[in-house]
Amino acid sequence: MTYQSINFKNKLSLFSEQWTPKVIAEMNDYQFKIVKIEGDFVWHNHADTDETFIVLEGQLRIDFRDGNVNLSAGEMYIVPKGVEHKPYAEKEVKMLLIEPRGVLNTGDEDASEITAVNDVWI
Amino acid sequence: MTYQSINFKNKLSLFSEQWTPKVIAEMNDYQFKIVKIEGDFVWHNHADTDETFIVLEGQLRIDFRDGNVNLSAGEMYIVPKGVEHKPYAEKEVKMLLIEPRGVLNTGDEDASEITAVNDVWI
Repeated sequence: MTYQSINFKNKLSLFSEQWTPKVIAEMNDYQFKIVKIEGDFVWHNHADTDETFIVLEGQLRIDFRDGNVNLSAGEMYIVPKGVEHKPYAEKEVKMLLIEPRGVLNTGDEDASEITAVNDVWI
Repeated sequence: MTYQSINFKNKLSLFSEQWTPKVIAEMNDYQFKIVKIEGDFVWHNHADTDETFIVLEGQLRIDFRDGNVNLSAGEMYIVPKGVEHKPYAEKEVKMLLIEPRGVLNTGDEDASEITAVNDVWI
């Protein structure tokens, strides 16, 4: 029997909309989500969990209240829980997020109009 | 203040030995480890946790008792907890493992001579 690996490029080719994380895998109670973003997000934080960003294509900047971090393809960064952050991409960036099942993209922020539907698989 | 991203290629350039996972980051109680392997490992399983494999360079095959999965760079696979598996690489493969802190490379197998020292950061 041949099992199927998960190919990031293939999964990314299945949608074009931005700011809508899609779940591609689960490890225990953690989810792997791919997402395309461009422009500025809102300041938010996740009070109960760290959040992992891995850039697959493009360039991402994550702003913090006291600075920022720049990520290119092949780089990762883990935002510690409770730390306010704001992802930004001048051009579209494609990335992999890893976080516990149930975490919303806007964290604890009251920003329902930009809160993505959760737990959408692709 | 400029924070530093974690670059997989840079981290991989810091060591050459095989079969010795090095921790590069922690998200909550999970660790991200890079490792280089070549050849055949032992059959083992992790009774209490899934295990994530992401291939960074090269080709990996994971054998199961009833089949296998092939992974190239840019692909991932999650081995469910309790499932016996044996990683294999004809040529050296460089990969990222994600699993809870404290998980040993040989799982529940009694194979102390090939069990890597745990929690080594790079």
